[in-house]
Amino acid sequence: MPSPEDRNDLDDLVGALRRFTAERDWQQFHDPKNLAMLLASEAGELLAEYRWVRGDQADAHSQEPGPRARIAAEVADVGIALLLLCDRIGLDLTRAIADKLAQNAARYPVERSRGRAERPE
Amino acid sequence: MPSPEDRNDLDDLVGALRRFTAERDWQQFHDPKNLAMLLASEAGELLAEYRWVRGDQADAHSQEPGPRARIAAEVADVGIALLLLCDRIGLDLTRAIADKLAQNAARYPVERSRGRAERPE
Amino acid sequence: MPSPEDRNDLDDLVGALRRFTAERDWQQFHDPKNLAMLLASEAGELLAEYRWVRGDQADAHSQEPGPRARIAAEVADVGIALLLLCDRIGLDLTRAIADKLAQNAARYPVERSRGRAERPE
Amino acid sequence: MPSPEDRNDLDDLVGALRRFTAERDWQQFHDPKNLAMLLASEAGELLAEYRWVRGDQADAHSQEPGPRARIAAEVADVGIALLLLCDRIGLDLTRAIADKLAQNAARYPVERSRGRAERPE
Repeated sequence: MPSPEDRNDLDDLVGALRRFTAERDWQQFHDPKNLAMLLASEAGELLAEYRWVRGDQADAHSQEPGPRARIAAEVADVGIALLLLCDRIGLDLTRAIADKLAQNAARYPVERSRGRAERPE
Repeated sequence: MPSPEDRNDLDDLVGALRRFTAERDWQQFHDPKNLAMLLASEAGELLAEYRWVRGDQADAHSQEPGPRARIAAEVADVGIALLLLCDRIGLDLTRAIADKLAQNAARYPVERSRGRAERPE
Repeated sequence: MPSPEDRNDLDDLVGALRRFTAERDWQQFHDPKNLAMLLASEAGELLAEYRWVRGDQADAHSQEPGPRARIAAEVADVGIALLLLCDRIGLDLTRAIADKLAQNAARYPVERSRGRAERPE
Repeated sequence: MPSPEDRNDLDDLVGALRRFTAERDWQQFHDPKNLAMLLASEAGELLAEYRWVRGDQADAHSQEPGPRARIAAEVADVGIALLLLCDRIGLDLTRAIADKLAQNAARYPVERSRGRAERPE
């Protein structure tokens, strides 16, 4: 059962990110273009953690202490960039995800999509 | 004041993503390596929305209806990939972000970082 | 035996890219930052071609007509972005690669690297 | 006037890359999927070199000694990944680029494209 502190975790993080950014006067660097670049470069670092790992060993790899710590750090960097961008442009991340998930459900009907990888576009 | 439905937004989304994935039997494609690739390719699509936009026009661009809808969709795709990956490897995203933010605070002391862009590494 | 036309293939392409860009008056968009974004977003599209393909089927996948045509187009887009960037900043791509290869040879000595995947950093 | 050594620079580099890879027995890691990941992660590192740089300062930034050395190294890493991938799947990079450039010329007619940034599509 979630305690009251669990609620609005994301809002709390966004608040902490705002303070972190403001204290360092970094808003000037955080226009949406730069944040999209930050996000993509962090996604690239996460990618690097898996690039030589076989697909069928990627789950196990993700549980090994050394790689796991690095993966967690890269996942966090991606998450931070995503929250910074959403906050900067006033976009509700959870709502955007919910909306997209509804679109995806229509785009990939269960009966036609089962067991078939999505097409690249 | 947040209503009860607001709490655990992320948990709700993760639940919806699990159902979406399970109904289509897509877990087989969602090993962590593939999800890291999904994340990076979606981050690349988000990047494409800003690549010809001037930095000092990127905020305004993010508010124009057409671009905004595309940006929201790409942001959502990135968020979905991130949640799928965290769920797959059993990583608590909000906690990972909070931990990283604490590390960043130590790594970039306010007095030495103010107004200076982070170094690339 | 290469015919004379084979020489300086890259120089010819760079010349064609310059004309293409100048005719459209696109130099204004092609600052190095934007070109780095173009490159990364094209790399993301290439990534998308392989994200649901198993590693041990990726060679065969690359030879199937449909995927191969898309892969060739994405590879070309990455190559174009790379050449545009090198031309813009006055960097000799083949020399930069030769220099890096020499560094890599020193960094990954044969006897210690054989059969072991490079470390992520 | 190019000396004979200038010709087939790319072929020479590909030969050197093949030897480098074979000596370390790294072909096993270099399936096309992994090489696409390598490419995208290196593109992400290049992106990181420009993410806090203003667009109108990106040309000058690219000439400063410290950044330039890092940019050259990242450009080279991208180029190496691209050549490894093309060699692995038997794709002629310069021909693929020439073909794509012809397609782009048809897709972006001069009279309708002049001075207008390409749409993300």
